[in-house]
Amino acid sequence: ATPAADEAGAAAVDEASARPAKAGLCVACHGQYGVSGLPGHPHIAGQDETYLRESMLRYRSGERPHAPMKAVVGGLSDADIAALARYYAQLPRDGLGPREKQ
Amino acid sequence: ATPAADEAGAAAVDEASARPAKAGLCVACHGQYGVSGLPGHPHIAGQDETYLRESMLRYRSGERPHAPMKAVVGGLSDADIAALARYYAQLPRDGLGPREKQ
Repeated sequence: ATPAADEAGAAAVDEASARPAKAGLCVACHGQYGVSGLPGHPHIAGQDETYLRESMLRYRSGERPHAPMKAVVGGLSDADIAALARYYAQLPRDGLGPREKQ
Repeated sequence: ATPAADEAGAAAVDEASARPAKAGLCVACHGQYGVSGLPGHPHIAGQDETYLRESMLRYRSGERPHAPMKAVVGGLSDADIAALARYYAQLPRDGLGPREKQ
């Protein structure tokens, strides 16, 4: 790959792994890094990105009825939702959070 | 722990990790061991057991509208659903399936 492509790739990785400001909305139920400590609340770390995005869109539209999630995502934009889905999808499934880059 | 408790514990682990016959219904969308290869289909390996059980119950009742999942779980009993939830919840999140017992 050309240096420019590497740079773009690195930026994409950093950009994807950068924690969106709105991730703070998710921590109470889904844990600091996407593994929930609360029975009945799904783990979202390492979940499928499309599934996460579509779930949040369905909560927002009400197609998937869930009052607490509607309250959280109701005010989010499509871009917010896409960024949150991308961020949580790339988190390690063990819930220990992003690894330092080697 | 007493030998009897150990035995019960071991049986519980074996019983929990034994693959329910009806898990075959899940593989097409959720992968051989609960990590899906299909965008938009959630990973279920290592997911929260209560969330898995409640999701399947809601698909079955229609409270959570989803035709394909309704078709799959519509004929399952509460016991079937509980066994599937327990099985997938204890699977490793990496999707490589149960480890051989040391």
